[in-house]
Amino acid sequence: MWIAELSRRAEVPVATIKYYLREGLLPPGESVGATRSRYDEAHVRRLGLIRALVESGLSLARVRGVLAAVDEESLELHDLLGAAHGALIPDDIAASAESRRRVDELVEQRGWLVSPAASDRALLAAALDALEKVGHHLDDDLLEVYAAAAQQVGDADVAHLPSADRASTVETTVLVTALGGPVLLALRRLAQQNASARRYGSSHFPAD
Amino acid sequence: MWIAELSRRAEVPVATIKYYLREGLLPPGESVGATRSRYDEAHVRRLGLIRALVESGLSLARVRGVLAAVDEESLELHDLLGAAHGALIPDDIAASAESRRRVDELVEQRGWLVSPAASDRALLAAALDALEKVGHHLDDDLLEVYAAAAQQVGDADVAHLPSADRASTVETTVLVTALGGPVLLALRRLAQQNASARRYGSSHFPAD
Repeated sequence: MWIAELSRRAEVPVATIKYYLREGLLPPGESVGATRSRYDEAHVRRLGLIRALVESGLSLARVRGVLAAVDEESLELHDLLGAAHGALIPDDIAASAESRRRVDELVEQRGWLVSPAASDRALLAAALDALEKVGHHLDDDLLEVYAAAAQQVGDADVAHLPSADRASTVETTVLVTALGGPVLLALRRLAQQNASARRYGSSHFPAD
Repeated sequence: MWIAELSRRAEVPVATIKYYLREGLLPPGESVGATRSRYDEAHVRRLGLIRALVESGLSLARVRGVLAAVDEESLELHDLLGAAHGALIPDDIAASAESRRRVDELVEQRGWLVSPAASDRALLAAALDALEKVGHHLDDDLLEVYAAAAQQVGDADVAHLPSADRASTVETTVLVTALGGPVLLALRRLAQQNASARRYGSSHFPAD
């Protein structure tokens, strides 16, 4: 397809596509003559991935990191997930030794197979620190509830990945991770509203 | 306490405290003479809340909205949670009628007591749309897993709220909602890495 059709299919303006091509986020099409190129389904899919990542709030530099992990053919599928997750999150994570120890213990207790170097360990520790800093220690039993819920979601996410070619499995994984987060957080807020209506009652609903 | 001690206790620079006072985010202290004011524990707590909200990525305008809900004494505690959630999320949410219907059905099926006007209904619908847009319909059974996990977390969040005075209950609720999100998302990514190591195997861990 020509660039106009790619633009229509992916719902991305031609000028933006050209920008992504210049920046190397989108691989070039097949040259036809001096000034025209043909694009294919892989370009449509890649544009969808770029747009989803940009719209989920990632900077272009971070999107580039995720795409680099996706394109690194030498990574095993599992290691690729870790690399893509690593690119989704900030590089310089400051977390206390105490919270890092707590995270490592949690991962071990649950028997999770997670690389010791996974950036998400540090990110989780930093998130626990942020709560400590405002005087709200997340109790072990509450953290346990979070971890059990996260495991149900993570297991279901991976079980629902298509058994397709490597490129589309990877792209789906990145999309589901990035775009599934807001789904989970909105559901949690709705569930909190339900729980608070039941605990405190409200004029709209009777208390339990 | 004087402003210098408030600054030290809250770990917020004096200049920033003065800015928050000018902007009306922080209520004034008790005037002592023409140029000095005394502050108390409520100021320390309020600064912790402002800082946590700012660090979680909210604009000052949005922080102001959350604080307005917190300070609205006429709101019942439960309605306040909805108002604070509403202030945490964008105002103009475009979501498809189909996804809105799906969310309403889900809330009804689970028997959740949630205001029909809750902004999180629209936000959840928009998050489902974002997945649809890149060709990834979130299956009903996967959405069900997300909702069940969210309910466990939301129930535990509210059950762990302190039975304290209104102001600190509200502040804790807002903090736990804003700062607990990153904890849950980091745990989900770790759990995904575990599930993918088990599904695909990796050189670091044997496949199941």
